[in-house]
Amino acid sequence: MREAGYYHVYNRGCNRQPIFLDDDSIYFVSKPVYLGAASAFSLRSNGYVYMTLQEDGVDLDIVEDKLKEIETRGELDKVKFIYTISNFHNPGGVTMSYEKRKRLVEIAEKYDVLIVEDDPYGDLRYEGEAIDPIFKIGGQERVLLLRTFSKILSPGLRLGIVIGNKNIIRKMVMAKQASDLCTPSLTQRLAARYLQRHNLLAQIKPTIALYREKKDLMLTELDRNFGDMNGFYWTKPEGGLFIWFTLPEGFDTGEMLELGKAENILFVPGQAFSLDNTCRNSMRLSFCLPPKEDIIEGVKRLKKVIVEYGKEKKLL
Amino acid sequence: MREAGYYHVYNRGCNRQPIFLDDDSIYFVSKPVYLGAASAFSLRSNGYVYMTLQEDGVDLDIVEDKLKEIETRGELDKVKFIYTISNFHNPGGVTMSYEKRKRLVEIAEKYDVLIVEDDPYGDLRYEGEAIDPIFKIGGQERVLLLRTFSKILSPGLRLGIVIGNKNIIRKMVMAKQASDLCTPSLTQRLAARYLQRHNLLAQIKPTIALYREKKDLMLTELDRNFGDMNGFYWTKPEGGLFIWFTLPEGFDTGEMLELGKAENILFVPGQAFSLDNTCRNSMRLSFCLPPKEDIIEGVKRLKKVIVEYGKEKKLL
Repeated sequence: MREAGYYHVYNRGCNRQPIFLDDDSIYFVSKPVYLGAASAFSLRSNGYVYMTLQEDGVDLDIVEDKLKEIETRGELDKVKFIYTISNFHNPGGVTMSYEKRKRLVEIAEKYDVLIVEDDPYGDLRYEGEAIDPIFKIGGQERVLLLRTFSKILSPGLRLGIVIGNKNIIRKMVMAKQASDLCTPSLTQRLAARYLQRHNLLAQIKPTIALYREKKDLMLTELDRNFGDMNGFYWTKPEGGLFIWFTLPEGFDTGEMLELGKAENILFVPGQAFSLDNTCRNSMRLSFCLPPKEDIIEGVKRLKKVIVEYGKEKKLL
Repeated sequence: MREAGYYHVYNRGCNRQPIFLDDDSIYFVSKPVYLGAASAFSLRSNGYVYMTLQEDGVDLDIVEDKLKEIETRGELDKVKFIYTISNFHNPGGVTMSYEKRKRLVEIAEKYDVLIVEDDPYGDLRYEGEAIDPIFKIGGQERVLLLRTFSKILSPGLRLGIVIGNKNIIRKMVMAKQASDLCTPSLTQRLAARYLQRHNLLAQIKPTIALYREKKDLMLTELDRNFGDMNGFYWTKPEGGLFIWFTLPEGFDTGEMLELGKAENILFVPGQAFSLDNTCRNSMRLSFCLPPKEDIIEGVKRLKKVIVEYGKEKKLL
C-alpha cells in the first residue's frame, strides 16, 4: 500500500538512478491525457508519443507504427512504458475494449515494453460487463497496475496500490524512502482495518447507484440541449466520473472558462489534458458531486455560455 | 503544514525547474550529517561541502573559507544552501551556540546564501536554556525553517512544517502537487484539531521528563563503562534523541554491527552519516525507546562487543 501510487511511480524517474524516465526517455500517453500523470512524466522527459483516444481505447495502430519506427532508429531501449487508463478514462470517459487490451499486450510483448495500467475508476462501473484488466491479460512482469483508494474509500487518505514486477517495486520503495521515508502509517492502517472489517465493494453500491443516476441525467441533459447541434459530441461512459465534451473547431474552452464562472458553472478546459496545447475545443465534465437539480441547471447554463461565445466568435 | 517537510524540500530539486539543487549545485552539510537529508541531497548533486561538527555546532571557519574560495572561482551562484540542524544534532547530539548562529547568519548575508535550519528536536530540551532559532536571528528571507510533528505528536502522521520565503514555499507547493497532489488531508486535520484543543508543549512534559532520565542514565552508564578508557568520547546532549559515541581510530562500527546483533543490541554505524565513507569509528546511540534496565544492560553489552572487537583487532 503506497501513498498516491501513480504519482510516485512517475516521479521516481527524477532520481539519479532513474527507475523509469531518463532525460531522453520515450513514453506513450493518450491524447487527451490525465493531467497528473502527464505533468509528472513531463517534469522528467518530453519524449512523449501520443496515442489518439478512440471510443474503445487508444489507437493501437499508432502504437505499433511508432514502435516499429523507433525500432528502426535503434532506440527501442529508450521506450520506458505505455501509460494507459483502461476503464472510464480521465478525461475521456471511454473504456478500452477487451480486443484492444489483448492486442496492446501482444504489441508490448513483441517490442518488450512495459505497460503501466492506471485503473482508479474500475470499481465505479454503472452498466455493462467488467472487462479483464490488462494486468490480468499480460501478467505482472509485463504490466504495472496502479489502483487507488481515492475514489472508493477516501481521497484524503492519499493511498494507492502498485502491483507489478518485484524489482520495479523494490526500486520504488527505495526511491520513496529517499523522498519522504514512507507513507503515513496511520492512513495505511486505517485503510487496512477497513478492508479487514468491511466489504468495500459492497459498501460503495449506494454510491454507484447514485453516480449512475447522475451520469444518466447529465447525458440526458446534454442530449436535450445539444442533441440537435452540429459538431457537438460527447462520450457515454459506463462508469467513472467524467464525460468528455467536444465542441466544433474554433471553440476555445479555456477562453470560455470565465464566461462559465460568471454563470457559476465550472468545467476543465481540454487544454489542461494536452501536452502540446491542443484539445482546446473540448472540456471535461464531472457529474458526481453536484445535486441532480444543479446538473439540469448547469447544462442549461453551459448551453447559454456556448451559444453566447459561439455567436460572438461567429461559430454558430 | 506539509508532509515530511524536510524530505520534500530537498527532493523538489529533482524537477526540471529545480527549486534548490541542480546537477552542479553546491551545498553545505555537517560531518557527520543527517542521513535522510544527505541522501535526498545527493540524489541530485554530489557538490557537498563538509562542515566539521564541533561541540558548539559546525565549524564556521570552514564555511567562511570555502565560500571565499568559491567566490574567487566565480561560482557563488552555484551555492544553494547551508543545511544545519540547530538543536540536538542528529546524529551528533550537539547544539549550535548563539554566537555561532549569529555568525552563521552574518556569513550567509555576506555571501547571500540561504540557510536551511532543520529543527526536529528543539522542543525536546531536557536541560539548559533554549537558544534563539537561526530563523529568528536571520529572518525568513535568509532562513528556511523546517519543523516536524514526528517527534512531538506522532511519527506516523508524516507531517512537517516549512516556514520561509514566499516564493520558495510557492515553488515547493507546485512541486509537491506535481509529485503527489498533496499531503493527506486527514492527517493534516488531525494535527490541526489537536493543536486547537491541546497545548502540545504542555502535553509532552512527561515525555521530556522520561527522556531526560533515560539520557542521564545512558550518559552515566557510558561513563561507568568507558570513562577510564583512552580515546573513547561521547557527546552530552541537552535534548533530542541521540548520543554520538566515538571510538579510537581503527574501530569499524559497521563491522561491529553483527557482533552487536549477536548480543541483541543495536546502534547505527557512523558510516551511515557520512557521504565519503568516513566516520567509521563512531556510532549513534538512541536512549529514548529502551526501558531503563535495558539501557544499563545495553551499554554493558556494548562494552563487551567493543572489548571483544578491540582485542581481536589488537586495538585495545
